[in-house]
Amino acid sequence: MCSLAGLKFDGLMQLIRFPEGVPWVSYAVPMDTNGTDIDVVGHTCTQQEYEIHDLFFANLNLILSEVDSVGTISASLVTYASIQALKPDLIINAGTAGGFKAKGASIGDVFLISDVAFHDRRIPIPVFDLYGVGQRQAFSTPNLLRGLNLKVCKLSTGDSLDMSSQDETSITANDATIKDMEGAAVAYVADLFKVPAIFVKAVTDLVDGDKPTAEEFMQNLVAVTAALEQSVSQVIDFINGKRFSEL
Amino acid sequence: MCSLAGLKFDGLMQLIRFPEGVPWVSYAVPMDTNGTDIDVVGHTCTQQEYEIHDLFFANLNLILSEVDSVGTISASLVTYASIQALKPDLIINAGTAGGFKAKGASIGDVFLISDVAFHDRRIPIPVFDLYGVGQRQAFSTPNLLRGLNLKVCKLSTGDSLDMSSQDETSITANDATIKDMEGAAVAYVADLFKVPAIFVKAVTDLVDGDKPTAEEFMQNLVAVTAALEQSVSQVIDFINGKRFSEL
Repeated sequence: MCSLAGLKFDGLMQLIRFPEGVPWVSYAVPMDTNGTDIDVVGHTCTQQEYEIHDLFFANLNLILSEVDSVGTISASLVTYASIQALKPDLIINAGTAGGFKAKGASIGDVFLISDVAFHDRRIPIPVFDLYGVGQRQAFSTPNLLRGLNLKVCKLSTGDSLDMSSQDETSITANDATIKDMEGAAVAYVADLFKVPAIFVKAVTDLVDGDKPTAEEFMQNLVAVTAALEQSVSQVIDFINGKRFSEL
Repeated sequence: MCSLAGLKFDGLMQLIRFPEGVPWVSYAVPMDTNGTDIDVVGHTCTQQEYEIHDLFFANLNLILSEVDSVGTISASLVTYASIQALKPDLIINAGTAGGFKAKGASIGDVFLISDVAFHDRRIPIPVFDLYGVGQRQAFSTPNLLRGLNLKVCKLSTGDSLDMSSQDETSITANDATIKDMEGAAVAYVADLFKVPAIFVKAVTDLVDGDKPTAEEFMQNLVAVTAALEQSVSQVIDFINGKRFSEL
């Protein structure tokens, strides 16, 4: 289930911390002079989780891993296993997303997320309905937002690349500018353990555009992932040396 | 996130084996004279996971737990955590489902599942499409099937209680007689670790019937869960003392 391609191993030490059988890979960035530690956990070709043990750390050599376990189940499992194994202070969920041009999204935009929710968990029974939608706020980082002049929006998560009319209704109710396949699942697990999580998402395709989603996604994946890499590096540089209250 | 009601504690020993924060509960049935061990892990009001350390074990005091974490994410997490903590030889995923009367299902039917798949993970990219559908076979138990004269069918899993037209198309493609919100997620994680899994599912509502699903589900939940309890007890009695090859 797990394949890797184009990895930058320079200065990285591979760690096997997960049980045999799981389709995830974990790499550790060497500790810098502050004695800080960054772990990069990959479970899809478009998404990386960064678990930061301390708030002081070196520059990150970004890794692109090519693993085919997209979606909420894998995202929740890898978040759970990462929290258990690495006890992170902060989770950065970085990945790609589809954007709605009607809400101001363009190809290549990189967004910092304010709120996440699911759009394909319809359970019309009181209490269960809210559990299904799973609306959660990202950890608030007003200084990061101002410092990097990032765009901000709400994110909606579901397990399909396409969008059914029911999905669309829910995405509209979630007031989402972009949709992905992992964010709200990462937020759910992070919330269980009260680990702060932030979300950096880059737009590969326009859901309300003219081109078929799968085609547009594949066409833009490499270029948009490069833009995402740059933004995530800036986010990490900004966080480096700061306390939660300074973010 | 976790509430309990109506638990039968007689002869049971509560074990806290999961990390603080998760909405699951685990109970152990005392070891019988064969030195065998059964664990019951609950994460929804309609579903229990049974992890069996050995294939020789005592009668099970069935537990009904009332926990609101339905759906594939919670099912995958609790299966993952249970496999890591309990190293089971066999997983029995017991729960409720919606049935299709056009495929022969009736309220109160209890099915043993031959195959599971997802119906709400549409990823129209080669390889990813099959990953999304996630078709898997349950562990084959022909003697159990004959011995208990159980009905057998295919199960389709999704995170919504209702059914969109896209869901319906996928459920038809999956050739499913019943739909639930957990089975294929349990199967995915069990498959990662090569733990055999069987699925016992009782029909609470007819998806293609006249009544609204949520209403019919709530109406029949108590009676159907009692029928499920009886069937699962029979399944466990049958498995008791047998080897995998005898199932």
